[in-house]
Amino acid sequence: MMGKERSLQLSPIGMIYSRYKDRGEVPYQGRRSKEISRIEVFKKFKEGLQDIEGFSHIIVIYWLHKSQGYRLLVRTPWDDIPHGLFTTRSPHRPCPLALTVVELVARDSNILKVRGLDAIDGSPLLDIKPYIVAIDERSVVKSGWLEGKLGRERC
Amino acid sequence: MMGKERSLQLSPIGMIYSRYKDRGEVPYQGRRSKEISRIEVFKKFKEGLQDIEGFSHIIVIYWLHKSQGYRLLVRTPWDDIPHGLFTTRSPHRPCPLALTVVELVARDSNILKVRGLDAIDGSPLLDIKPYIVAIDERSVVKSGWLEGKLGRERC
Repeated sequence: MMGKERSLQLSPIGMIYSRYKDRGEVPYQGRRSKEISRIEVFKKFKEGLQDIEGFSHIIVIYWLHKSQGYRLLVRTPWDDIPHGLFTTRSPHRPCPLALTVVELVARDSNILKVRGLDAIDGSPLLDIKPYIVAIDERSVVKSGWLEGKLGRERC
Repeated sequence: MMGKERSLQLSPIGMIYSRYKDRGEVPYQGRRSKEISRIEVFKKFKEGLQDIEGFSHIIVIYWLHKSQGYRLLVRTPWDDIPHGLFTTRSPHRPCPLALTVVELVARDSNILKVRGLDAIDGSPLLDIKPYIVAIDERSVVKSGWLEGKLGRERC
């Protein structure tokens, strides 16, 4: 089994600039925020953005560069009870990958302005995918322990 | 700028087993498929699955291990015109990361059975996140060049 746990390598395709300088400044749900973040796609990848203005929402995948280690059972702002890490959106994960659906507000060459991104300033950008309702939306779901808890963070 | 393009390292947290042995066997939209895939979460991460049975849908992030290189402008099955890579879900990307929202059908210890996963057999599993309507769903969107094209693949 050890052979399967090989290391995989990624090179960022860009960089995220936001007003969140630290984890503590990021809202629990970036979606609620009206803040605009700026995504720089490195110039050599710019051609890959062609036609992106037509999409109102995109999926941003980025590296949680401030993440340090992880626990498999975590407490969240929504519950007293710890839950399995993979049932949470905790930023502290074995593979520190984050994905956020954001609103694409504007594009200027290789710079995208987006709303609703919960990334810390300086997060390496790994990928951008179009958000496609027919693929990404699931209307009827069970949300496990999170049911009815979102929006009711404990202080 | 070169300093920002450093290499990042990931170690898989599991392995995906499916009946798709090659890219050509994977349906364009895994969601339509009734096929069941099996996700093995390596035993050392098993505790992180606690409570996951309560979720009907999860987001699976995996490594596109058969991906070889990429083009910044790509033709898709949905259009004659090439489009920017980041406006497509092509598996050939600078960072070969895939994400799919799947239906969680059953759990047996560290094995999850899921429906709607479009991963090739042997894909390294990187992360599992709960699919949360309040976070992940966007009901009103513009889908750019893809508008009205999904479900109408060209032969």
